[in-house]
Amino acid sequence: MNKSIFSHRSIRNFKQDAIPENLMKKILEAAIRASNTGNMQAYSIVVSTEKAIKEKLLPLHFNQKMVVEAPAVITFCADLNRFEKWCKLRNAEPQYDNFLWLYTASIDAVIAAQNLCIAAEDEGLGICYLGTTNYTAKQIIDVLNLPKLVIPVTTVVLGYPNENPELTERLPLEAVVHFQKYSEYSDNDINSLYAEKESLELSRKLIVENETENLAQIFTQKRYTGKNNIHFSKELLKAIEEQGFMNNDN
Amino acid sequence: MNKSIFSHRSIRNFKQDAIPENLMKKILEAAIRASNTGNMQAYSIVVSTEKAIKEKLLPLHFNQKMVVEAPAVITFCADLNRFEKWCKLRNAEPQYDNFLWLYTASIDAVIAAQNLCIAAEDEGLGICYLGTTNYTAKQIIDVLNLPKLVIPVTTVVLGYPNENPELTERLPLEAVVHFQKYSEYSDNDINSLYAEKESLELSRKLIVENETENLAQIFTQKRYTGKNNIHFSKELLKAIEEQGFMNNDN
Repeated sequence: MNKSIFSHRSIRNFKQDAIPENLMKKILEAAIRASNTGNMQAYSIVVSTEKAIKEKLLPLHFNQKMVVEAPAVITFCADLNRFEKWCKLRNAEPQYDNFLWLYTASIDAVIAAQNLCIAAEDEGLGICYLGTTNYTAKQIIDVLNLPKLVIPVTTVVLGYPNENPELTERLPLEAVVHFQKYSEYSDNDINSLYAEKESLELSRKLIVENETENLAQIFTQKRYTGKNNIHFSKELLKAIEEQGFMNNDN
Repeated sequence: MNKSIFSHRSIRNFKQDAIPENLMKKILEAAIRASNTGNMQAYSIVVSTEKAIKEKLLPLHFNQKMVVEAPAVITFCADLNRFEKWCKLRNAEPQYDNFLWLYTASIDAVIAAQNLCIAAEDEGLGICYLGTTNYTAKQIIDVLNLPKLVIPVTTVVLGYPNENPELTERLPLEAVVHFQKYSEYSDNDINSLYAEKESLELSRKLIVENETENLAQIFTQKRYTGKNNIHFSKELLKAIEEQGFMNNDN
């Protein structure tokens, strides 16, 4: 079974070495082999390697320096623009400017992204996904010149690793997997499923650093606060609407 | 580089052989190694193998018989329920009942799904994604007992292949990949990028079967019509709202 999957770590520290052109081509080909709805390939992949563009993307990814240090910043976009253009040139009447297709194309973009990540890791490259893509979609649209019916879904920074971090922990399999149907969690279930995570040395260190009572409060009070969640929800919905994906009425 | 990625075909015809338990465990472990936002693992994986449940899912996936024939139907869900429960038990105040987290968790669910698919294919299993998941989310929620803050994102059928289909074609790499920024397509670009796809024997056969003028019209008039797109957009948005993911106001 594929080793990259089990040895995956997010890499945030990269060597300056560029990615050879033929290797980049190969991992992009891995991306487009991905399963996708109706073989419509309703996504686009924007590979940014120029310093000037990476510098414009930097603040949009909250100044995480890997955005300029990694040789490539790859933005995966849901894209119905290309498909609609093709339809219109063929006397077909496309109507993919709605939420269903935003969501469908987003899924397809992510499947392609993960293919790229695994192919890249198989070749000794390191990757990190940037969730900030969904916080600043509107501004990324401007920087990358994304037209209507195109929206960024996720970003991957890519390059040769300059660090070798520990494997991060995961909840036990039974916390995430349900057989047959979903089994609702009792309080006892939650306590026991999160026990190992909470007892880690790293978790205890983070609690001290963040001056919270426990690990959960680090998420709700520091990393992903209600105020920010609501602010960025509104921004994301606005971007989706502005890109033309909200024509959901007859 | 991983061979499964380049030899991927969607499998719709399965042998009756069950998937050995230890193999299923291994590919589920591959799924949960996936990159995910804040290591919150805001997704759940529902593995349905019982005939009675697969039969209930069958019409929700438009009676594609692989849903009952495949030994396992795996529904990947965005899940903030588990995480919010944990927060509430820890005197933390979670606010992940909004669109940002629906979208974020959906992305994470898909990354996990694609890890599972590649790991499964590495072991000789075959997979097919079911986009119908987004059309009938509400009914799938009922069948799988998904609580508030859980919604199905995509479904994968899994089993040993009983067919060996041809590799499907893709648009040329330059149709999908942009360097530095997005390059808008001219009419000539579209014509040349779609030329190979349109000239395939299979495409010409489909046009005759569907009685359309060209390939694009098969999509707009037969497979994914405007009327259906709008209907299913509304249904999907309703499901998202009913699951509690639309509290986007302060």
